[in-house]
Amino acid sequence: MNFASDNWAGVTEQVSRGLAEAAGGLDAAYGNDTLTRSVSERFNDLFEREVAVFFAATGSAANSLALSTFMKPSGIVVCHRDSHINTDECGAPEFLTNGAKLLPFGGHEGRLDAASVTRTLETYGPNNLRGGRAVAVSITQMTEVGTVYRADEIAAIGAAARAAGVGLHMDGARFANALVSLNCSPADITWRAGVDVLSFGGTKNGCWCAEAVVFFDPARAEDFDFYRARSGHRFSKARFVAAQFDAYLADGHWLDTARRANVMARRLADGIERASQARLAWPIDGNEVFAVFTRDRAERMKAAGAMFYEWPAGHDSLERPLQPGEAVHRLVTSFVTTEADVDGFLAVVDEG
Amino acid sequence: MNFASDNWAGVTEQVSRGLAEAAGGLDAAYGNDTLTRSVSERFNDLFEREVAVFFAATGSAANSLALSTFMKPSGIVVCHRDSHINTDECGAPEFLTNGAKLLPFGGHEGRLDAASVTRTLETYGPNNLRGGRAVAVSITQMTEVGTVYRADEIAAIGAAARAAGVGLHMDGARFANALVSLNCSPADITWRAGVDVLSFGGTKNGCWCAEAVVFFDPARAEDFDFYRARSGHRFSKARFVAAQFDAYLADGHWLDTARRANVMARRLADGIERASQARLAWPIDGNEVFAVFTRDRAERMKAAGAMFYEWPAGHDSLERPLQPGEAVHRLVTSFVTTEADVDGFLAVVDEG
Amino acid sequence: MNFASDNWAGVTEQVSRGLAEAAGGLDAAYGNDTLTRSVSERFNDLFEREVAVFFAATGSAANSLALSTFMKPSGIVVCHRDSHINTDECGAPEFLTNGAKLLPFGGHEGRLDAASVTRTLETYGPNNLRGGRAVAVSITQMTEVGTVYRADEIAAIGAAARAAGVGLHMDGARFANALVSLNCSPADITWRAGVDVLSFGGTKNGCWCAEAVVFFDPARAEDFDFYRARSGHRFSKARFVAAQFDAYLADGHWLDTARRANVMARRLADGIERASQARLAWPIDGNEVFAVFTRDRAERMKAAGAMFYEWPAGHDSLERPLQPGEAVHRLVTSFVTTEADVDGFLAVVDEG
Amino acid sequence: MNFASDNWAGVTEQVSRGLAEAAGGLDAAYGNDTLTRSVSERFNDLFEREVAVFFAATGSAANSLALSTFMKPSGIVVCHRDSHINTDECGAPEFLTNGAKLLPFGGHEGRLDAASVTRTLETYGPNNLRGGRAVAVSITQMTEVGTVYRADEIAAIGAAARAAGVGLHMDGARFANALVSLNCSPADITWRAGVDVLSFGGTKNGCWCAEAVVFFDPARAEDFDFYRARSGHRFSKARFVAAQFDAYLADGHWLDTARRANVMARRLADGIERASQARLAWPIDGNEVFAVFTRDRAERMKAAGAMFYEWPAGHDSLERPLQPGEAVHRLVTSFVTTEADVDGFLAVVDEG
Repeated sequence: MNFASDNWAGVTEQVSRGLAEAAGGLDAAYGNDTLTRSVSERFNDLFEREVAVFFAATGSAANSLALSTFMKPSGIVVCHRDSHINTDECGAPEFLTNGAKLLPFGGHEGRLDAASVTRTLETYGPNNLRGGRAVAVSITQMTEVGTVYRADEIAAIGAAARAAGVGLHMDGARFANALVSLNCSPADITWRAGVDVLSFGGTKNGCWCAEAVVFFDPARAEDFDFYRARSGHRFSKARFVAAQFDAYLADGHWLDTARRANVMARRLADGIERASQARLAWPIDGNEVFAVFTRDRAERMKAAGAMFYEWPAGHDSLERPLQPGEAVHRLVTSFVTTEADVDGFLAVVDEG
Repeated sequence: MNFASDNWAGVTEQVSRGLAEAAGGLDAAYGNDTLTRSVSERFNDLFEREVAVFFAATGSAANSLALSTFMKPSGIVVCHRDSHINTDECGAPEFLTNGAKLLPFGGHEGRLDAASVTRTLETYGPNNLRGGRAVAVSITQMTEVGTVYRADEIAAIGAAARAAGVGLHMDGARFANALVSLNCSPADITWRAGVDVLSFGGTKNGCWCAEAVVFFDPARAEDFDFYRARSGHRFSKARFVAAQFDAYLADGHWLDTARRANVMARRLADGIERASQARLAWPIDGNEVFAVFTRDRAERMKAAGAMFYEWPAGHDSLERPLQPGEAVHRLVTSFVTTEADVDGFLAVVDEG
Repeated sequence: MNFASDNWAGVTEQVSRGLAEAAGGLDAAYGNDTLTRSVSERFNDLFEREVAVFFAATGSAANSLALSTFMKPSGIVVCHRDSHINTDECGAPEFLTNGAKLLPFGGHEGRLDAASVTRTLETYGPNNLRGGRAVAVSITQMTEVGTVYRADEIAAIGAAARAAGVGLHMDGARFANALVSLNCSPADITWRAGVDVLSFGGTKNGCWCAEAVVFFDPARAEDFDFYRARSGHRFSKARFVAAQFDAYLADGHWLDTARRANVMARRLADGIERASQARLAWPIDGNEVFAVFTRDRAERMKAAGAMFYEWPAGHDSLERPLQPGEAVHRLVTSFVTTEADVDGFLAVVDEG
Repeated sequence: MNFASDNWAGVTEQVSRGLAEAAGGLDAAYGNDTLTRSVSERFNDLFEREVAVFFAATGSAANSLALSTFMKPSGIVVCHRDSHINTDECGAPEFLTNGAKLLPFGGHEGRLDAASVTRTLETYGPNNLRGGRAVAVSITQMTEVGTVYRADEIAAIGAAARAAGVGLHMDGARFANALVSLNCSPADITWRAGVDVLSFGGTKNGCWCAEAVVFFDPARAEDFDFYRARSGHRFSKARFVAAQFDAYLADGHWLDTARRANVMARRLADGIERASQARLAWPIDGNEVFAVFTRDRAERMKAAGAMFYEWPAGHDSLERPLQPGEAVHRLVTSFVTTEADVDGFLAVVDEG
């Protein structure tokens, strides 16, 4: 009954085995090894075009270094107020980009909408010597409130970005969960919809520390190795990341893993919908369930062995406002979540 | 016969097994897990005092973030001209410290000497508003030319640093090899000799990506978690580093591994001393052998299957200057080096 | 009828004369000259205590370098959404502080309120490794919508900052106008109310480029000369700033100048209150008048020779919302504004 | 007898008068005023081509911001060991460029030579992910030891830079003195010789704070206004810099001023050549005289009213090494230096 976060899990057996198999032998350092090269090429197939891919080991590094490639002096990154880069990365985007200003605003159910993006990009145009100039828009798939962007929603934002001459970055920390939920191809919700660079996350979905920064226009990646190097994110034994991705991507393992987490979340959500003492905060698309119940109830459930956290964000998307004593709680599933975990939770949600 | 670098090796069986054993279960993210805590405490025993320890995943991150804790505006880090931070980290120390100037100078056999350090610290005193002010001295153990600092040499530099009110950092990427070579305790060549912070390297000696930043005065570490966070070096599933260190430090495994590499290097050096067509560049202390032979010979040896690189640094420490056609070559051993590798190399060194 | 901005004016005769008188002779560079020292000391009298004062030449430099002294890694500066540092300094606060995140929020009539400040400081506490940690609060006196903070309002914010262990910075670009408006002493609205450091502006009020960063606790200023030096803000012929301040502060010249600007603004505001086709947006405290009238009218008035700009901020403080076609317009007075300018404007405001 | 530095002088009468004349009236802020535009255009004539020119107020800002336009992640700026950017700007080039590493090396009489530049640029090529990659070469005209680069020497370095695809920056803090000494056109020693951007100094030669960054390829200047803005170097009343340059450039005033300083230096040098107790350190080209005499003698001369400083740099260019007790002393002349100052100094140089 541990729904604290998907980054509390370790790694899947396949990933663990893949890493163990890569342990021996000698190969070139700093990503010039055979495994890194072969795994990198696999991303071309995955995205149905030639991409430039670089591995990183944390999501914050992937996001911040990806955003660096758009950065200009006085650059601004437009993002959702609740986005991970704005609220959870402790200044890494600002620092690693040499001082980008994140320009956050709201948006229903965790999503930016294209009209607001367009307005903001007009305000922070290329000659704005007071407020600064937008250089990129960053969206999160799936969002911080567990919803996903549909391909057409992304495309509208992509068009807005392109019209303003700025880049579009996607923080795909839970890209696999979104993909499974949308039942579409990786290309459909990335470059075909105008995404320029994707942080393709593996860590939350069964790897130790495997993130890939995927550039759909390889020319944009020109300086990326230097961005990694100057920030200490270039690994000497780089194949340990490649080995994780090798196992992760093999035979659709990554999608199976995400699917399992999503299914568990669906089961959990369905149960909460049936509950009388709890309700869903907003629609559930992937492996995160946000439920409204009282803080008292939360305490009792924790006492009964459940683990989860109260969630401070997204409240303006609630259909029915919080009543006194109520709070929004986040429940995250992952590849280690079992039906027993879910059913155990549901068994006590209405108790007391 | 692959002597390219110790970071071409993968991981030892123990480390690989340790990592596999940590794969299951759920535990808190961001280093708040049980394993990270228990491994961290082990460093207290190792260094015979209470230390503050933080894990990192690359040596450049460990060094640069460690140096950040000394940084002030217009700060200067005094280091050897050939030091890794000055020549191999691609600007990471400058970038991650917000613009420290590295002030490099020479020194026999890769070592700084205390007298030069003192003179430099006097020039870049605390009120130098033109040239900047020294904030730290950084030394490398073992050095980039394969030599080690003795405890008394470190202590002399430590005294110089303390007298000037600046910090002393040790880049211990090959700390284990130095320790085995010196046959002393970790405390003797660190805090007892005035070292304030140590980058304790595990990567080159049998881990995937395991570096520890060890503060001998825990108060200095106050902001370290923020330095890690803002640069994207805070790992969500932090226990994958802890698991490596857990196995690495168990039962003296780390020293065994280093000892094996050093023994292989000794065997290689002894052979080169006996050779007629090659000679040692300078004394050999650990797992790096620097040998002088002609570039023609190098080509022939590579054709015979040997791997190694020419080395551009340290030439002013050569007893006998390079003759036309000669170059210095670096041969690095590691836990995967076999006697067959060494003997194979020695079998062909005088050929042709 | 030019109300574009107070930085469109040149310098007062006294300041110009003072600068000319300083032109001759030789004296030490970099602020070690006699004039810089003597003018600096005058700030002790002005603020009724010993202060540490440093000159700068732009308001952005003064603000950003002042904030630097509070900065820690992942540091956050709490400020009003419409504050100059957030909307008009083109990323200088972020850049010069090594990547501070500005955390903006709203507040009635351009002012932060102590309760909101307290809540925000609680969220971004000293151990917030996700969102970052607050290091300072910055307020503007007078605000960007022309209002002033009373001493008790500042004191409430000062208490909130002190309780949270963070600093309080005041951007005093129009400090003189606020002071005249409040009719109190400089000490009352600065250190006595908890302000730690003040950007004391001279530029907008009759100097060419004269800003002073005033530290009420001289110990905090320890590194300031280095912050200036590393950002290119240390002037070799520093006495040219000192000479401006020498004339500016002599015989209350700075207050006379501000008073004149405020009187002109009052006259303008009174006229607008009497007008039928325009209304004041909110209360007028200093030398900035914000008036609501239609864009059509604005065009006609510009055609008649008036200069001013539409103002995008502060609209949530309007008592009566904007009607279709209406906008808020900013009219700034300065020491060069004449009664004829004001009366000329008022003569046409109701026309057409 | 004050030869401390040319930045100890104030401003010339013409410059002072020009500034006073600009004091009145209203005009657009931030460099959009009439005067800034007209003075900027004058630089086209001066350099015989269309240039992009931006004003700054300190030499460190001009140099560092100019270098920023070449910067890439892990960028390296090649410069002379004794260059002002390397020894006197307190980390501003590193900081304002987001962490450029300055790569200093020696060179006879303060000059870089093209062959060494070529070798260095080869080492730090565009793919050097260890040491970093060169992005620019910076030379100083005149050099820190008072010598000048001839046009052909600059052209050789310019060719080396172009061949390597990096930029060439000239720190022209004493450009006017060099120009007068070389008796050539500004174009000859800048863009015709391969210089991409020039820091054109006015401050040391009779202005308060007037530096111009001159881009010979206006396209390179695209982001410059943002570099200025984000570092607080964009002046609201920008015309106060323009007014200085307006007077400085009128009727060859700037060259007259430099010529006078050079003539005084020549007179001083001639006297020292005739002296028995002092000798010139190396050839004298402009307004700086470097003389070798004993420290005892220096003390006596200071007691007699002379002001100057010992000079730590350039000693490897001395024809005759320093004898015990001797030191190199720098004597700087400027537009305020009189024949009486020079003759007074020469009268006592052999005394005692």
